[in-house]
Amino acid sequence: MGTRVEVRVSGGIAYATLSRPEKLNALDFEMFENLVIAAAEIRRNRDVRAVILRGEGDAFSSGLDFASVGKQPMRAARSFLRPPWRATNLYQRACWAWRELPVPVIAVVHGRCYGGGLQLALAADFRYTTTDCEFSVMEAKWGLVPDMTGTVTLRELVGLDVAKRLTMTAEIVDGAHAKDLGLVTDAVADPLAEAEKLAAEIATRSPDSVAATKALFHGTWHRSPRAAFRIESRLQRRLLLGPNHKIARKAGMAQRIPEFVRRRIR
Amino acid sequence: MGTRVEVRVSGGIAYATLSRPEKLNALDFEMFENLVIAAAEIRRNRDVRAVILRGEGDAFSSGLDFASVGKQPMRAARSFLRPPWRATNLYQRACWAWRELPVPVIAVVHGRCYGGGLQLALAADFRYTTTDCEFSVMEAKWGLVPDMTGTVTLRELVGLDVAKRLTMTAEIVDGAHAKDLGLVTDAVADPLAEAEKLAAEIATRSPDSVAATKALFHGTWHRSPRAAFRIESRLQRRLLLGPNHKIARKAGMAQRIPEFVRRRIR
Amino acid sequence: MGTRVEVRVSGGIAYATLSRPEKLNALDFEMFENLVIAAAEIRRNRDVRAVILRGEGDAFSSGLDFASVGKQPMRAARSFLRPPWRATNLYQRACWAWRELPVPVIAVVHGRCYGGGLQLALAADFRYTTTDCEFSVMEAKWGLVPDMTGTVTLRELVGLDVAKRLTMTAEIVDGAHAKDLGLVTDAVADPLAEAEKLAAEIATRSPDSVAATKALFHGTWHRSPRAAFRIESRLQRRLLLGPNHKIARKAGMAQRIPEFVRRRIR
Repeated sequence: MGTRVEVRVSGGIAYATLSRPEKLNALDFEMFENLVIAAAEIRRNRDVRAVILRGEGDAFSSGLDFASVGKQPMRAARSFLRPPWRATNLYQRACWAWRELPVPVIAVVHGRCYGGGLQLALAADFRYTTTDCEFSVMEAKWGLVPDMTGTVTLRELVGLDVAKRLTMTAEIVDGAHAKDLGLVTDAVADPLAEAEKLAAEIATRSPDSVAATKALFHGTWHRSPRAAFRIESRLQRRLLLGPNHKIARKAGMAQRIPEFVRRRIR
Repeated sequence: MGTRVEVRVSGGIAYATLSRPEKLNALDFEMFENLVIAAAEIRRNRDVRAVILRGEGDAFSSGLDFASVGKQPMRAARSFLRPPWRATNLYQRACWAWRELPVPVIAVVHGRCYGGGLQLALAADFRYTTTDCEFSVMEAKWGLVPDMTGTVTLRELVGLDVAKRLTMTAEIVDGAHAKDLGLVTDAVADPLAEAEKLAAEIATRSPDSVAATKALFHGTWHRSPRAAFRIESRLQRRLLLGPNHKIARKAGMAQRIPEFVRRRIR
Repeated sequence: MGTRVEVRVSGGIAYATLSRPEKLNALDFEMFENLVIAAAEIRRNRDVRAVILRGEGDAFSSGLDFASVGKQPMRAARSFLRPPWRATNLYQRACWAWRELPVPVIAVVHGRCYGGGLQLALAADFRYTTTDCEFSVMEAKWGLVPDMTGTVTLRELVGLDVAKRLTMTAEIVDGAHAKDLGLVTDAVADPLAEAEKLAAEIATRSPDSVAATKALFHGTWHRSPRAAFRIESRLQRRLLLGPNHKIARKAGMAQRIPEFVRRRIR
């Protein structure tokens, strides 16, 4: 893989770090592609129980690197295409690849979280931020709209008036206000510590039920109750037949900490 | 009906009480079936204007009775099946039967509200709790996911990150925090009094418009605006042609308290 | 156009004012029709960058004028009809015409905001209110349900229990509480000043990206991720090819205030 996203696995956590600090981790084509590759690499490692996604240097990400992307207009246009069997184009996939990982992805953001960078953070399952980190749906500054899956991830967290306001104005809100709006899970002094705490807590649960939780909500959030009931039922039957349910149950009954086998879901 | 859910009607309110206090109202097959039967019984009584659903003893419900259900694996498997004309299997129906009642269902919870017990409370229209009641999407402790309609009812109340966190970790949150998260309508010292107050307030309104409110939001919440507009319009026309609209209007004009006739909706 | 809705354009803002103060801007047939006409008039004026919608006199709107509408039962019945190519009937269109304007609509409400008046305010993109303004889904008082698009706009802002409670009880909540519930964008001492501030802020952004923001969220809010991704991508490509993106980009790079050309979107 490339050099824009560094992945290090330690204690069951994959630390994925945007590594272009000299550009505040702005997103160029290499970054887009490296994001997709890094997520795929993490997916293959079944020992990973959680991902912590963050940015090296002064910011999580300042968003699209217009200067760099603007130099390759044909590539920019081509990257809008998607094969018919895919839901996403390259820009969207750079975010959605994290969303679709069968392990929890926790974004730890600081400094700036703008535009495409914000959409990447929103594609994570949880977001911890410093209180002074600056958030903005920065696309409006360039006369654009978010088009890297933010359309979907915003609606899952905030009301329609908030989504419109942020997207129309590109106004900058700090971490504390982002928490009030629902954009982030929490705004704290040490977001990395908070993320590691949550990762550790989730690691005490079955990797299969954790993966199923993502599949469950992602597959049903916008569906009819009838469709949702079918999906929750189907996922549960798979979990009931798997080894980790039995392990969880025995440990739970005995008040012991369970030792799970590798996940089978996905 | 069985003995697991006691129903008493008084002053237009049906008090439905989970009555297995020696097991903290844990859900066994008899409880599942009794929940469905009790809801059906209440549905037939058109004098009922509201339901208050609560638990006898120290807890609302501690969730699934694994020991009991585990003894009947064939029955447990069979209960996952649903006839093709139904949206729900037995586990789901034990919750959804309350959701689909044409009168408001107000859960009054205390002590513990875990797993299937929480999903039952979430299927009510409103939830009042003591501030110290313990809530948990407890399924994760057993390596499972909620599969008793919680997939749908969680999304109607909380953001996606909150739903995932609760479902992945099985963390226990108290009533006050549950209120902050949006899981409950309110956390108060005397939730039963609050529930009765709301029931009394709703009873001053037409039983038909109250029933139509449930049909309206349940039928449209996940639908397109176009579909939703058709449904709101159709329900309104039915209400306009019914007797209770005229009664409400006359009483409203005269500033009197209306005396409604029995509901016709549903 | 008629005399029930006065439109005045000043500084790029269209001030649309319900002008039936002697009846607290209650909605009669003339008002419904004038609302549709006024929105159409504003749509044709491409110099308008925002709409501020408010009520003359003591209230934003007290809702349906039952006495007046009741005198024309045939017209009332006929107004429920909609041509098959339309999503809305007349009552719904009086609200939805504002929702579908390609410029931001900011409701400034005071005094009373009841029933159909509330649904009109909810169809705006943003709502600023005085803290003491009275809000109510007043339809329940008449044994009815909201049927002027409120079904859709409520769900975009509040949880299901809040929507049901307001709709079942017709309880009156003040502006400050409405803010807590999510019904309004903000409750402040001078809502008109706040609305003008937001309008001015939005006017610094491309009229095309602002219009696309509305199209984006309105077209995707209830759709699958796959459908939403297609729409965000398609809108972005249109924006990228338009003149205002280039203008925004140049101005942004040069840290100048952009001077946009008229919008092309819609």
